[in-house]
Amino acid sequence: MNRLKVTEKIIQTKIKKNIKWSSVAETVGLSKEYVTAACLGQMTLFEEQASLIAAIFDLTEEEAKWLTIPPNRGSLPTAIPSDPTIYRLYELINVYGTTIKELIHEEFGDGIMSAIDFSIDITKKTHPNGDRVNIQLNGKFLPYKKY
Amino acid sequence: MNRLKVTEKIIQTKIKKNIKWSSVAETVGLSKEYVTAACLGQMTLFEEQASLIAAIFDLTEEEAKWLTIPPNRGSLPTAIPSDPTIYRLYELINVYGTTIKELIHEEFGDGIMSAIDFSIDITKKTHPNGDRVNIQLNGKFLPYKKY
Amino acid sequence: MNRLKVTEKIIQTKIKKNIKWSSVAETVGLSKEYVTAACLGQMTLFEEQASLIAAIFDLTEEEAKWLTIPPNRGSLPTAIPSDPTIYRLYELINVYGTTIKELIHEEFGDGIMSAIDFSIDITKKTHPNGDRVNIQLNGKFLPYKKY
Amino acid sequence: MNRLKVTEKIIQTKIKKNIKWSSVAETVGLSKEYVTAACLGQMTLFEEQASLIAAIFDLTEEEAKWLTIPPNRGSLPTAIPSDPTIYRLYELINVYGTTIKELIHEEFGDGIMSAIDFSIDITKKTHPNGDRVNIQLNGKFLPYKKY
Amino acid sequence: MNRLKVTEKIIQTKIKKNIKWSSVAETVGLSKEYVTAACLGQMTLFEEQASLIAAIFDLTEEEAKWLTIPPNRGSLPTAIPSDPTIYRLYELINVYGTTIKELIHEEFGDGIMSAIDFSIDITKKTHPNGDRVNIQLNGKFLPYKKY
Amino acid sequence: MNRLKVTEKIIQTKIKKNIKWSSVAETVGLSKEYVTAACLGQMTLFEEQASLIAAIFDLTEEEAKWLTIPPNRGSLPTAIPSDPTIYRLYELINVYGTTIKELIHEEFGDGIMSAIDFSIDITKKTHPNGDRVNIQLNGKFLPYKKY
Amino acid sequence: MNRLKVTEKIIQTKIKKNIKWSSVAETVGLSKEYVTAACLGQMTLFEEQASLIAAIFDLTEEEAKWLTIPPNRGSLPTAIPSDPTIYRLYELINVYGTTIKELIHEEFGDGIMSAIDFSIDITKKTHPNGDRVNIQLNGKFLPYKKY
Amino acid sequence: MNRLKVTEKIIQTKIKKNIKWSSVAETVGLSKEYVTAACLGQMTLFEEQASLIAAIFDLTEEEAKWLTIPPNRGSLPTAIPSDPTIYRLYELINVYGTTIKELIHEEFGDGIMSAIDFSIDITKKTHPNGDRVNIQLNGKFLPYKKY
Amino acid sequence: MNRLKVTEKIIQTKIKKNIKWSSVAETVGLSKEYVTAACLGQMTLFEEQASLIAAIFDLTEEEAKWLTIPPNRGSLPTAIPSDPTIYRLYELINVYGTTIKELIHEEFGDGIMSAIDFSIDITKKTHPNGDRVNIQLNGKFLPYKKY
Amino acid sequence: MNRLKVTEKIIQTKIKKNIKWSSVAETVGLSKEYVTAACLGQMTLFEEQASLIAAIFDLTEEEAKWLTIPPNRGSLPTAIPSDPTIYRLYELINVYGTTIKELIHEEFGDGIMSAIDFSIDITKKTHPNGDRVNIQLNGKFLPYKKY
Repeated sequence: MNRLKVTEKIIQTKIKKNIKWSSVAETVGLSKEYVTAACLGQMTLFEEQASLIAAIFDLTEEEAKWLTIPPNRGSLPTAIPSDPTIYRLYELINVYGTTIKELIHEEFGDGIMSAIDFSIDITKKTHPNGDRVNIQLNGKFLPYKKY
Repeated sequence: MNRLKVTEKIIQTKIKKNIKWSSVAETVGLSKEYVTAACLGQMTLFEEQASLIAAIFDLTEEEAKWLTIPPNRGSLPTAIPSDPTIYRLYELINVYGTTIKELIHEEFGDGIMSAIDFSIDITKKTHPNGDRVNIQLNGKFLPYKKY
Repeated sequence: MNRLKVTEKIIQTKIKKNIKWSSVAETVGLSKEYVTAACLGQMTLFEEQASLIAAIFDLTEEEAKWLTIPPNRGSLPTAIPSDPTIYRLYELINVYGTTIKELIHEEFGDGIMSAIDFSIDITKKTHPNGDRVNIQLNGKFLPYKKY
Repeated sequence: MNRLKVTEKIIQTKIKKNIKWSSVAETVGLSKEYVTAACLGQMTLFEEQASLIAAIFDLTEEEAKWLTIPPNRGSLPTAIPSDPTIYRLYELINVYGTTIKELIHEEFGDGIMSAIDFSIDITKKTHPNGDRVNIQLNGKFLPYKKY
Repeated sequence: MNRLKVTEKIIQTKIKKNIKWSSVAETVGLSKEYVTAACLGQMTLFEEQASLIAAIFDLTEEEAKWLTIPPNRGSLPTAIPSDPTIYRLYELINVYGTTIKELIHEEFGDGIMSAIDFSIDITKKTHPNGDRVNIQLNGKFLPYKKY
Repeated sequence: MNRLKVTEKIIQTKIKKNIKWSSVAETVGLSKEYVTAACLGQMTLFEEQASLIAAIFDLTEEEAKWLTIPPNRGSLPTAIPSDPTIYRLYELINVYGTTIKELIHEEFGDGIMSAIDFSIDITKKTHPNGDRVNIQLNGKFLPYKKY
Repeated sequence: MNRLKVTEKIIQTKIKKNIKWSSVAETVGLSKEYVTAACLGQMTLFEEQASLIAAIFDLTEEEAKWLTIPPNRGSLPTAIPSDPTIYRLYELINVYGTTIKELIHEEFGDGIMSAIDFSIDITKKTHPNGDRVNIQLNGKFLPYKKY
Repeated sequence: MNRLKVTEKIIQTKIKKNIKWSSVAETVGLSKEYVTAACLGQMTLFEEQASLIAAIFDLTEEEAKWLTIPPNRGSLPTAIPSDPTIYRLYELINVYGTTIKELIHEEFGDGIMSAIDFSIDITKKTHPNGDRVNIQLNGKFLPYKKY
Repeated sequence: MNRLKVTEKIIQTKIKKNIKWSSVAETVGLSKEYVTAACLGQMTLFEEQASLIAAIFDLTEEEAKWLTIPPNRGSLPTAIPSDPTIYRLYELINVYGTTIKELIHEEFGDGIMSAIDFSIDITKKTHPNGDRVNIQLNGKFLPYKKY
Repeated sequence: MNRLKVTEKIIQTKIKKNIKWSSVAETVGLSKEYVTAACLGQMTLFEEQASLIAAIFDLTEEEAKWLTIPPNRGSLPTAIPSDPTIYRLYELINVYGTTIKELIHEEFGDGIMSAIDFSIDITKKTHPNGDRVNIQLNGKFLPYKKY
């Protein structure tokens, strides 16, 4: 057994039982973004949270334990993603990467937006010409330390 | 002459004359994100906008013309960015890519967030424990067409 | 079980039972291009359509369900395809890519041809010197949004 | 001097003098797709055609000669294109590559669509919900020879 | 079952039963080059030819059917082959590729040697200082079409 | 100065003065394949041969000297060639590589066809249905030494 | 002018004038590790620090300004470094990477060692059997935020 | 059986039985860094040490033997690690690699820090603003031999 | 069954039964370098030699047969080896590659050292300051043929 | 100026003045392998040695200084060398890499052959059937340290 097998079992059960990530999140009491990432093998859960997930997806006790262990992160099978939904995000970084860098430096100074002390929030904005996806990235600014 | 040379001249002049992207944006009347991307060779401008940019950065008429031409987009020198400020964004896609895909599909159905009918908005949230970077991605949902 | 296994079962059954994609398309009531892509794990189907596919290829109810889930798209095992029939398409992009970009921009302005609001149509033109393959790509033009 | 320098000179002159590919094509008497590809260093021209191009773009006699020489073809700087307008074509091959292969084999047998005995035709279809790009690929079917 | 499994079974049986490709070719009535390529999963056979192969290698009827289906071509596990016998061919293209291109263009004009309307012939020339391998590549010249 | 500069000068002069490789070969007294490869920076020449080449392409004495020095071989800018005329050769190795290996081993035993004690011969076979390119590869068989 | 040119000028001057990084560090009043990284184009300096550097390396005022701008970080020309002194560090990550991950997680929980709130300290330990290099990496532990 | 299977069994058992690397190290009598690396398939152990490990992780005698054999080292699945905890180390080399090289050469001369006669030591420094990770790399300096 | 499975079985048996390559070589009557390479799937053996190997490693008759078949050579899982013992050899080629080329050309003329008519010999030189590894590469010089 | 420019000047002068590496080595008083590597930008020299080199190759004082500075090592433009003379060495590592690893471990234990405390010696063995290249690699064995 390994984390990948647990992830695959969760996905299979989700499809077989028509489970929604939002209702999983509600049960566990965390955001839907964090819970989905944890179920897909990218984040960790506390033991009680893992037990709730286990109940939803019929996991064994041992399988649930894997959900509490820091995983080997990285969900892309290739360096440049081939799936169009994910690729568009890569394209945005490719096109806007230097712009984001310039503006973070102009407003905050030399440093980065943390990807660890970080949260993500995906919402739907309905619109007559077509709904819009809104993805909010929120991370702590970390200045380079001079020493 | 080519677009790259125009971009390099803009960056050099910006440093020599201590120009701020936000004040360039104000002069041109577009968001700071769009204007910076245009100056870095990733977006196009109308002729009058290009003239305003030219005045700020001492560009010749011919150089200004290049700013109105659709560029060969892509600002990363390597497929995986080496600069830490830009890499964190790549890392987020690597870690959260499948999560974003799952949640877009759960809430919108099969399709993508457009990277063309799209805007980006970077803001600073001051916070006693350290300021936070807020990056908002806003794109039209495009459903896969069945035919 | 995963989508790849469903795809492999469809291909095996197709060969064993001499099934034609065009007759599958007729049964399902969609174009042969869309139906083939769906069977090869690249597009989704509604439940009733999936049931019709299931009947043709002896799929279980659970296997049919996978056909309705947005897949992890991308059908090439390597970034540059090795199969000559598919490689010729890659070669065309390599040779004509900049030309297509120039002409789209000249006639439509700055933007792209959508690969989502899109259809493809493959037809055979018989010709005494050798039949010709005709591939028609039809996508909505999406202009870059200024903001 | 080399072909790349000639291509760069053509592009610079095109921007400085606001030349349109379609009017170049009309002058030369070939399709706009072929002429653009030739100007971008991907196709060859006869001497008289090259002279007409030279007159339009102020090329020297020696520069014009390069337009008649088979070039080292390939216009993409990276194996996977970073420019969104060109990437969408790559994405289509990634998503639809196996589908196109299946349907060519079903209707024509084992073989390929030639990328040499081939033409491409890009047209604009105006539409109230947004114009559409129509790209027609037309190549001779070449069956694999048994021997 | 898939084509790869059929190929592996053929290779195993060939070794176990000491079968020679030349005698397989004689039985099937095609060249040894074409038959070997077909057995290795790179070419297709007619049904009767596949039946003859099936008899030699103890294939089931279903396995034989796979030999008649256009395969996903490409027999190299890496872009640059590691096996010395195959690498020497890659080295020749690396060293002589531009030379071959120059001479094809000088004698035939702008175009390619077809890899589809093509045959290959490998023969042994005995020589007192060491035998020589003779590989003859024979393909139709395809001129680039002007349009 | 370096070998690449000499090669570029030869190519430029060839185009400006309409020189043919076959007539260069005749003057030098070697095959057109070897001479072309030498002019393209892949093979070496004796001093007298280099002097003859220098006379044809207006090379200085120092430039001629470079033609006698073993070059850093390899004429492809990318591991997989993008030019269609050269790519077809790569495709043949990709499709037929394992076949060639099998047949060399069946007829000669364990070993390789030398790419050093080797010659290549390109000829044109006129044919009513379209001329054919004939490329003959001739190399010494080198058996693996047991020790 | 760009940062790379400033870096190259610093290196040239250092060699010509036999300057030592440790004495540069002393003059500037920062650690030798930070100052060297800044001079090599990887870190930023305050204006007064940049002026001190400029005096040492004969930089113009404009060149000194570049030292205060956040650079495009990343000093390796290839993903895997070819220089043995640098490669050994890469090798250590390759061999010990999973070990370091396990032990950080065991002692700190799920998170990372910051590469931004970070310092490095290189010291020499003399030893009769051969001196030893001591590299101390010191970074803040950043726990993954649950949300 | 192979080393990878032994490593996987150790990891699984560790999670199932809540074993800590530090207590394993204590039992074996080596540093926690070395023992963890050995358990993860990167270092070798003496037979008695392997027996102690076997007792802790329920390994068979044959499995224990594999722990004494020099493994095929390298624990990263991709050249650039995707896991953030490990990536930060790669980033440090990318940013500080040339700096470390410069300072080793300045203080020791031309040579490297050995990655073989080497030890690593990871410690936790508690701090009111957030704990700090301290990684000490200690390797023998090896000067390039002149000969 | 395939060659890889035979190799894996040999390695497993070697570890289980504490077999030494040098004693295998003695039994077979070939050098330890050649025999090890053959057991690791890189060289071929005559039938009697394969039988001797089979007896040592408990191989079946069919498994032994695979040892007599020219394998698909290449023992590195990645283009640049990650294992330090093997990497040092790669580093030597990276550092000394152009030097070796220069000296072979200076002393032998234009050509290569054969990797086929070749032997390798690894010996141990004991030394008070630490034993030394001596690897002798011995290959026939093959001059490039002029034609 | 940088090391690469010094290397290029040395190579050009060597060709123009017909200098031999062996006579350079004699003048400097080091082995021809070390001297050639130093001239090609891979090794360092003492000041007096650099002065001797400078005299031979007409280097300025500043150019000579670069020869005494530890260079950024690595002489291959691509990870897998394209030049046949150098590729054969890569091929040997690819084919014999695991064999060399096994035999070093069998005779010395777990560790590596140093590429730093190392010398290389290339000699010519004349032989009636063709001269042979003899390359001797001699490096200190470094055992992995247990701690």
